[in-house]
Amino acid sequence: MRNDGRANNELRPVMMDKDYIKHPEGAVLIAVGDTKVICTASIEERVPPFMRGQGKGWITAEYSMLPRATEQRTIRESSKGKVTGRTMEIQRLIGRALRSVVDLSKIGERTIWVDCDVIQADGGTRTASITGAFVAMVLAFGKLLETKAIKQMPVSDFLAATSAGIDEKEGALLDLNYAEDSAASVDMNIVMTGSGEFVELQGTGEEATFSYQQLQTLLELGNKGVTELIGIQKEVLGELAKLIK
Amino acid sequence: MRNDGRANNELRPVMMDKDYIKHPEGAVLIAVGDTKVICTASIEERVPPFMRGQGKGWITAEYSMLPRATEQRTIRESSKGKVTGRTMEIQRLIGRALRSVVDLSKIGERTIWVDCDVIQADGGTRTASITGAFVAMVLAFGKLLETKAIKQMPVSDFLAATSAGIDEKEGALLDLNYAEDSAASVDMNIVMTGSGEFVELQGTGEEATFSYQQLQTLLELGNKGVTELIGIQKEVLGELAKLIK
Amino acid sequence: MRNDGRANNELRPVMMDKDYIKHPEGAVLIAVGDTKVICTASIEERVPPFMRGQGKGWITAEYSMLPRATEQRTIRESSKGKVTGRTMEIQRLIGRALRSVVDLSKIGERTIWVDCDVIQADGGTRTASITGAFVAMVLAFGKLLETKAIKQMPVSDFLAATSAGIDEKEGALLDLNYAEDSAASVDMNIVMTGSGEFVELQGTGEEATFSYQQLQTLLELGNKGVTELIGIQKEVLGELAKLIK
Amino acid sequence: MRNDGRANNELRPVMMDKDYIKHPEGAVLIAVGDTKVICTASIEERVPPFMRGQGKGWITAEYSMLPRATEQRTIRESSKGKVTGRTMEIQRLIGRALRSVVDLSKIGERTIWVDCDVIQADGGTRTASITGAFVAMVLAFGKLLETKAIKQMPVSDFLAATSAGIDEKEGALLDLNYAEDSAASVDMNIVMTGSGEFVELQGTGEEATFSYQQLQTLLELGNKGVTELIGIQKEVLGELAKLIK
Amino acid sequence: MRNDGRANNELRPVMMDKDYIKHPEGAVLIAVGDTKVICTASIEERVPPFMRGQGKGWITAEYSMLPRATEQRTIRESSKGKVTGRTMEIQRLIGRALRSVVDLSKIGERTIWVDCDVIQADGGTRTASITGAFVAMVLAFGKLLETKAIKQMPVSDFLAATSAGIDEKEGALLDLNYAEDSAASVDMNIVMTGSGEFVELQGTGEEATFSYQQLQTLLELGNKGVTELIGIQKEVLGELAKLIK
Amino acid sequence: MRNDGRANNELRPVMMDKDYIKHPEGAVLIAVGDTKVICTASIEERVPPFMRGQGKGWITAEYSMLPRATEQRTIRESSKGKVTGRTMEIQRLIGRALRSVVDLSKIGERTIWVDCDVIQADGGTRTASITGAFVAMVLAFGKLLETKAIKQMPVSDFLAATSAGIDEKEGALLDLNYAEDSAASVDMNIVMTGSGEFVELQGTGEEATFSYQQLQTLLELGNKGVTELIGIQKEVLGELAKLIK
Repeated sequence: MRNDGRANNELRPVMMDKDYIKHPEGAVLIAVGDTKVICTASIEERVPPFMRGQGKGWITAEYSMLPRATEQRTIRESSKGKVTGRTMEIQRLIGRALRSVVDLSKIGERTIWVDCDVIQADGGTRTASITGAFVAMVLAFGKLLETKAIKQMPVSDFLAATSAGIDEKEGALLDLNYAEDSAASVDMNIVMTGSGEFVELQGTGEEATFSYQQLQTLLELGNKGVTELIGIQKEVLGELAKLIK
Repeated sequence: MRNDGRANNELRPVMMDKDYIKHPEGAVLIAVGDTKVICTASIEERVPPFMRGQGKGWITAEYSMLPRATEQRTIRESSKGKVTGRTMEIQRLIGRALRSVVDLSKIGERTIWVDCDVIQADGGTRTASITGAFVAMVLAFGKLLETKAIKQMPVSDFLAATSAGIDEKEGALLDLNYAEDSAASVDMNIVMTGSGEFVELQGTGEEATFSYQQLQTLLELGNKGVTELIGIQKEVLGELAKLIK
Repeated sequence: MRNDGRANNELRPVMMDKDYIKHPEGAVLIAVGDTKVICTASIEERVPPFMRGQGKGWITAEYSMLPRATEQRTIRESSKGKVTGRTMEIQRLIGRALRSVVDLSKIGERTIWVDCDVIQADGGTRTASITGAFVAMVLAFGKLLETKAIKQMPVSDFLAATSAGIDEKEGALLDLNYAEDSAASVDMNIVMTGSGEFVELQGTGEEATFSYQQLQTLLELGNKGVTELIGIQKEVLGELAKLIK
Repeated sequence: MRNDGRANNELRPVMMDKDYIKHPEGAVLIAVGDTKVICTASIEERVPPFMRGQGKGWITAEYSMLPRATEQRTIRESSKGKVTGRTMEIQRLIGRALRSVVDLSKIGERTIWVDCDVIQADGGTRTASITGAFVAMVLAFGKLLETKAIKQMPVSDFLAATSAGIDEKEGALLDLNYAEDSAASVDMNIVMTGSGEFVELQGTGEEATFSYQQLQTLLELGNKGVTELIGIQKEVLGELAKLIK
Repeated sequence: MRNDGRANNELRPVMMDKDYIKHPEGAVLIAVGDTKVICTASIEERVPPFMRGQGKGWITAEYSMLPRATEQRTIRESSKGKVTGRTMEIQRLIGRALRSVVDLSKIGERTIWVDCDVIQADGGTRTASITGAFVAMVLAFGKLLETKAIKQMPVSDFLAATSAGIDEKEGALLDLNYAEDSAASVDMNIVMTGSGEFVELQGTGEEATFSYQQLQTLLELGNKGVTELIGIQKEVLGELAKLIK
Repeated sequence: MRNDGRANNELRPVMMDKDYIKHPEGAVLIAVGDTKVICTASIEERVPPFMRGQGKGWITAEYSMLPRATEQRTIRESSKGKVTGRTMEIQRLIGRALRSVVDLSKIGERTIWVDCDVIQADGGTRTASITGAFVAMVLAFGKLLETKAIKQMPVSDFLAATSAGIDEKEGALLDLNYAEDSAASVDMNIVMTGSGEFVELQGTGEEATFSYQQLQTLLELGNKGVTELIGIQKEVLGELAKLIK
């Protein structure tokens, strides 16, 4: 039995609270169990210097945690004066994932800034961020459609992410919470589309390794989780969901 | 008439959501109109180097805004690699204000880290932060009392803050929202205690000045606002409120 | 009796040495007791990016202390690689105060850089900086008038600053020196104009509070001090003083 | 046909020049095609603060490129004053990979600093770094064995890494050079052990996705490449290789 | 004729104002022509970590310029967040020069912090800094002698510095002012002792070179200048001067 | 006898490996004894902002050491987030030296970036860097000649550097290795041209001084060393050498 009573292939309860914050073009508070992330999408009417004049847009993501999102207070990155390697890894991952399902040539010379701010952390903050960020981004594209700034939804498929891992006792588990993540010997983050394609796969054996067979089991769990998450995204997005693909 | 229909001496609706975040020793989400701040208090079982061995504690505060708390997205301070002057001013103010009503010699060699993270901004973020931070701090002291780590509530009085300002057309106004704050020629932040003493007074004429008479009016408005805010703090704190003083 | 023999409402001896440094457009060495600050004003023929094309100018201030201006040597901010919160607070205050008495639309698209470098510190460095910075700025405007770069003195009033504070034994004191400042329970910085209006008011109870009545006394002391300081500014500025207002 | 005449499942020529640099405890220059990396392992007789007193060691890695390792000169990270996200990702990956095959409890309270400095880059610098870093690390452990500072080789298995990717025209390719990497729609880094277990798997569709079937093909290529690389490591390590496992 | 009427082998007027600043253990304002530097020496009762437990002291120097010491305002190094290469070169030079005439084993485990802050610059700021820093340092040692913290003056010889350079028209010149320095094709800084030994020699042809014969002429000028500067140091130091050597 | 068997006036064995790295316009691996430096020259088709529109080019240099180039591992400057004073001094010296023999008006509005990366250090890294950098730079100019981007070799003379020093026992020594450098009381870096002119002379007595006579001996040794180094440069540069002067 898992520490919160779930079956091994069961996601934690998922909640998405649309328009949680009033200023952004797209905003959602996503909760996956006790992990809570404010995801916002902001539209800037220009692209970074290296992309100017190509008639294409850009999507970039930033990720952060409130100092007391965690059990022990963490020092702010602004106080340290630099962003940690972990943060950089995560924000690069979120941006790459979102870009894989968007046709950048259809959004004009605009930058979509996606901000994922974890206000409470209990494992899986990066995958919850991706799942919520997708919703915030689609909402922002909805605003651009409304004002006729763009002609069609530039998103080719749904996108969500979850984790799976191997616990030496429990076996393969879907959607690890913090306690499970700390105990797991293998941890895999799986980002997939609505049509079941992989976008990103990051499997890590921290001071451990994993076999080809274990890999297959983790992929299967991930597939199940992502399918359920995309179901929830569709509900939250309502009419906008129908414009995707 | 004010842009949101309030009387000149009226506060915006105030809401305090206790224990909004699960990990911290004290936590509250405070909303003053559309300004929303997550305030948390974290206990660290040691003091900064310059205070060691004196048998006293310390209280320090940090303040930040989510990038899209504002109408236009602001660049993260962690990306810039440094904390702005405005942020420093505010966090020094919050810390100083809290320390004025706490007997540091009664909390042991502990540091209380108070974090104020603005998730939505509409004027008055620093005063809402102080008002919420006081509640989070008292909740944290409540935890120390529960575990008998301290013997009595070390807080000598209530503490809250609000702003008042002068609009050339509307006259003196209590609790400015963002639009009012931008238009005001004079802006005053007033931090007061439950017994009506001043803790901090910061009046600024941005490219303007103000007379002795105007100052008196602003102080009166501030006094009214703080009194009401402290009323709400008492409700939220319940039994703990009775231990103060 | 105060530690330097002054009456409670008495300023320390004030000296302003005009053109102390040869390169700047305006320069003064101000001494208030043992506090000595080199104030310079430099004219740059452009404004910061956010102000371009508005036909207006800008005034900005920087403040620093020599490492051994203080009793104990302080580490240079350049060695630390960052400016402290205290420095930022002070330089923002100086800039704001100066801008409150200048009509920025009359100085063309120019930036006035005001530098206040404390070479010896004995309390009140920020208020001495404001008082000296005003003189340096007016001298620089004098240069612009001489070369007919501007048509009239853009300064609407005199501006000076002093401190007042409350000592638990001595009572309310004007113009605190370092020893007095360290002992005071309440400290107030008062920036006022020649016509007796307030520009900035910063009252702080460091681990203490103050009453409405005490506030009135502090304001009265501040008013007396500023009036005397402006008298000295007029002497130092000579003919230029007559062009103000 | 690939641009350098290789079969799709063929590695580039691999060369490892042991003891290339004289000071380090372990050093190798690895060349994989035109990609050349100086890998060194340095022994420090203490561990980082968070690990002290546990009787265990630590392995950490740093990665950098000479400014002109690349076709266009890149700005030094020391000049920029910060390490880029890409660098952090890579050095975290190298460290994690190495730690997965070492029993840290057998190396005493020592830190092994592994430095991978790319002097010429032509794709696959991170996988070449891992493959070379493993050799440098084993050489350093050899030194510790010689001086009897440790009793047995603490390395449980061989470790090497390569990349595989999908080119829309050429299909699945092993060990991408820079031109191939730039053109590929999917890129996978595969870190495996001598016994065929996975250590790390990072598959990324940059603005693209990949199917379950494509994943299987990439894993197969990776397996073949890693097996060959480990063969070369064994030759280079000679007698030391026999102590592994 | 030189632009200020001096003979080619003539120093500018030199002035040293002892105890210019009240807090430091040693302080002097040195003026060499229009170049003015506040030099202070501060005693810290410990040495940097790398020197602890050796029974020896350390001397270190810092150098800075006020932003408007120069004709054009320079950006503060604290605002830039880093010390420039030029500043580092100069402060390393000053420290090295001072250490060459002090017996560090005779000053106990103390650090002498020498600060050279240029308040007005007109060429030769680094050599004026060395000449003034020597005086400030000796004054600080005087304080240690007074309090019997040390038993004898630990300074083995006098130390001063000047510059010499070659102007294509004027020939070899002693003690270049700013205009001369800008025009010179060769610039040499010469640091010498009272007994005519060299401590530091830095000759630079900026986009030019110099012959062996020119070098001899520059050395001769430097020797003359240093001899005169040391004469002035002796006057300023009075009784303390007699304790040297 | 010197620790490596050389005569006092003998250079260490010198080797220059041309085109060691494939991407740069000019590249050489220089070895002086066990000191090994990769020197590259990169051409950028623009100049820094302060030089634009003058029709002239610029030459700038950067210097770094691999962390384990030294006996003890050194922390990377990118990890520290700043370049040390020593590094800045060296890279400024290299740039200045190269510019002294190049007619910048003949290279068009281009920047030559010279990178000197020490992969193994055994004393004399800065002088080896200059000697190698000169070769890399001439090779890069050769590329510009080939493509007819410039019309003639803009280099007026050869340029090389070596060190000489005084050991209290051994006397004056040419080309100090690390052990000798650590023991020497005086250290001089000498940069000279093919026609025997000085470009830069930096003599330092670290906690020591040196006489006029000693200076003459060091200059003589330097002259001998530089002459031999230029002989080797000529061989390596082959036909290109004939275009110089």
